[in-house]
Amino acid sequence: MITSSIKQSFIRIVGEAFYYDSPAERLVYSYDATPNYQAMPDAILSPSSAEEIASIVKVCGEHGIPIVPRGSGTNLCAGTCPTEGGIVLLFTRMNRILELDEENLTVTVQPGVITGELIASVEAIGLFYPPDPSSMKISTIGGNINENSGGLRGLKYGVTRDYVLALEAVLPNGDIIRTGGKLAKDVAGYDLTRLLVGSEGTLGIITEATLKLVPLPETKKTMLATYGDMEAAAKSVSHIISGKIIPATLEFLDQPTLAVVEDFARIGLPTEAKAVLLIEQDGPAELVTRDMTRMKEICLEHGAVSVELAATPEEAEALRTARRSALSALARLKPTTILEDATVPRSEIATMVSAINRIAEKYKLNICTFGHAGDGNLHPTVATDARDHEEMERVEAAFAEIFSEAISLGGTITGEHGVGMMKAPYLEWKLGPEGVNAMKLIKQAFDPGNIMNPNKVFAKESRKRVVISR
Amino acid sequence: MITSSIKQSFIRIVGEAFYYDSPAERLVYSYDATPNYQAMPDAILSPSSAEEIASIVKVCGEHGIPIVPRGSGTNLCAGTCPTEGGIVLLFTRMNRILELDEENLTVTVQPGVITGELIASVEAIGLFYPPDPSSMKISTIGGNINENSGGLRGLKYGVTRDYVLALEAVLPNGDIIRTGGKLAKDVAGYDLTRLLVGSEGTLGIITEATLKLVPLPETKKTMLATYGDMEAAAKSVSHIISGKIIPATLEFLDQPTLAVVEDFARIGLPTEAKAVLLIEQDGPAELVTRDMTRMKEICLEHGAVSVELAATPEEAEALRTARRSALSALARLKPTTILEDATVPRSEIATMVSAINRIAEKYKLNICTFGHAGDGNLHPTVATDARDHEEMERVEAAFAEIFSEAISLGGTITGEHGVGMMKAPYLEWKLGPEGVNAMKLIKQAFDPGNIMNPNKVFAKESRKRVVISR
Repeated sequence: MITSSIKQSFIRIVGEAFYYDSPAERLVYSYDATPNYQAMPDAILSPSSAEEIASIVKVCGEHGIPIVPRGSGTNLCAGTCPTEGGIVLLFTRMNRILELDEENLTVTVQPGVITGELIASVEAIGLFYPPDPSSMKISTIGGNINENSGGLRGLKYGVTRDYVLALEAVLPNGDIIRTGGKLAKDVAGYDLTRLLVGSEGTLGIITEATLKLVPLPETKKTMLATYGDMEAAAKSVSHIISGKIIPATLEFLDQPTLAVVEDFARIGLPTEAKAVLLIEQDGPAELVTRDMTRMKEICLEHGAVSVELAATPEEAEALRTARRSALSALARLKPTTILEDATVPRSEIATMVSAINRIAEKYKLNICTFGHAGDGNLHPTVATDARDHEEMERVEAAFAEIFSEAISLGGTITGEHGVGMMKAPYLEWKLGPEGVNAMKLIKQAFDPGNIMNPNKVFAKESRKRVVISR
Repeated sequence: MITSSIKQSFIRIVGEAFYYDSPAERLVYSYDATPNYQAMPDAILSPSSAEEIASIVKVCGEHGIPIVPRGSGTNLCAGTCPTEGGIVLLFTRMNRILELDEENLTVTVQPGVITGELIASVEAIGLFYPPDPSSMKISTIGGNINENSGGLRGLKYGVTRDYVLALEAVLPNGDIIRTGGKLAKDVAGYDLTRLLVGSEGTLGIITEATLKLVPLPETKKTMLATYGDMEAAAKSVSHIISGKIIPATLEFLDQPTLAVVEDFARIGLPTEAKAVLLIEQDGPAELVTRDMTRMKEICLEHGAVSVELAATPEEAEALRTARRSALSALARLKPTTILEDATVPRSEIATMVSAINRIAEKYKLNICTFGHAGDGNLHPTVATDARDHEEMERVEAAFAEIFSEAISLGGTITGEHGVGMMKAPYLEWKLGPEGVNAMKLIKQAFDPGNIMNPNKVFAKESRKRVVISR
């Protein structure tokens, strides 16, 4: 509850123009990209500095008001739904690139910078920021850091975590801390930088970040391998990696996804194929050519029906864009799209995909699967309708079984989307009660009043583990 | 104090043959590679499993007995000196490589595996584990993980942290947890893996690790650039990186270090030079040749007197070995060697080296400086005698000033050696009281009884910050 005196405190901090609490404004920030977790915040604040945020945090701490930091709300784990009310913090006024340091290969940014804009800025001067979540055209760097976002280039280049060198953050007690530096090496105490990365706004609010850049690869090539069965595609993936080639991108789309994406993107995808692999390599031209030739051979040796190299950069871009649009394409099918990201060791991809298909059949669901084959990070997706309660129950049961299967194969419940509220009940399946307890110790130590994005990561109750009948 | 009943409890857990408490045995484990922190443990235990360690931890928790986990004791921050007594845990019986997974490019090891042996094992099958601390011939992987060790290949390949995918660890409450997996991506909750990496045994005991491997680079070339002044060497480093080349190794030795290393290694180093850069590149042959040619040009453009490519692999190995032996060589000069690792953004290397020289002059000390120029991670080293109290005071004052200078330049008090007991009083200079407090919150939450490697990372008292007169 925000009383009028608390409201006045907030307004004194951010100014009247940056405090919003009309029903329409509250409605706008009541949901994110995740279906089914809508909840109204009490107010929305758009601060302009770490100091303002520290003051806001102190007010919230005093009155037990939940704080939900929010970038563009593109997350898929209900990480930014204000399920306990309270305030939503926006970073629309903290959206500047503060410094691009070409000598140290770093860029320092405010959390509200749009990922795609950052990438374009650094590429303009021959540098490269690899993390590229599919939502990068609208996602913010702050959101990416909070969720430790992955992307299509994760296999070769790693994820957001691997590029965060330093952070400024406001802790739940109102302290402003600075971690790390423009340093390739720093072991001064615990790794608070990486503890904050992926902590989903539950431990503090990121107010500035220094990111590592690498030289922009000189060239890039793209090809599409088409398969008559999934098993062959998975085998190709395994043989590429065990053949000691690490491609920049190694993406997979199954037949149902292909059909939907082609219908959306209309670029001539082979919709009759059972699966395709989108393969890219970047680097010096001679090396890219060598790797692409070798990967083409491997794909053909392991059952690819055809392997086509994109003839032009435009054709390559069309393929990438098609892959990135998978979620948007699937979202056109039905009112509700539920996209998951169970992840397994890459050697288990074929097993996992066939398990997903078996589970889909068992629960009479159409599950489209695509994702980062090189990472073992799959996105089984169901187009459904949240108003159809009977079907929603089957969807939920199916995903529980998918998570369980992933864990049995040495995998995890989420590879890049985060736990948020959506996967919190399943966290214990991956970590055991001891692992969840260790995380709770940190949460309680940092945020004893539980004001920072409450209900995220940690569930009120864990689900019982499904017993899988094989 | 270990009473006879506690001793019996320990013996019941590990067996009589693996419990040591004779004065001679205790003396052996009373020190590590860091001078001046010797202290006697009460006993030494050599357990064989995580379960035994969990039982030991429970006994220690009950009786408030400090636990110091110790690999080979090669750390340089007094991280494994049992300064509060208690028990030293050895991993000599937990020294197996458990699994080498070529499909997922991972290796799973017990903590007692020797780093060099692991590297040799994986290279034998064409894979590569990049972290290569100078002590790798005797250091253990468990020790490397606890200290987040760096090495000569850090610039291009990162540090230990970047290769740890999964851990099994015993927490101070006796819980055994498993973090991560054979997964390129995993965002299921807080990053406990990276919280444990570099936590110096203060949060738990690592009992198993799964490490990421990469394909072994096809070729490697090595060259030595010789300079008439330091500034020119530092400029070359900056221009190599801003020229968008990331070499595998970019090491620096100043003249005093060169003289000492040559006297030790006798391989014909140019002892008259003011500084040398040891430069390596690895990868496909054509690329290595291209990068080496370009780097040679950059060095010559920016003042190198000469740049010599190693003609044979043996010559290259001799250069690397000479660099790795710098500490051993310096240790021959006087009874006590104090080696630090202040680290700065790489753009500040020249400034930092000249500050070190100025500080050496001010305190009438001979400071030899070498280190990882590409990382900004420098190792200013003093050969001294711990019995000469007057000189030791000057050494300490000089290093305090060096840390202070590094921080002023945006650097840190330790790039790869860890905080341990040695740098604990300076931690607050880097992190501020708020940052240290955040770390203490974690320590207290995990280890309320302060049994895990007490006195490390956190000092009883912080030093006052030196005011630098320029």
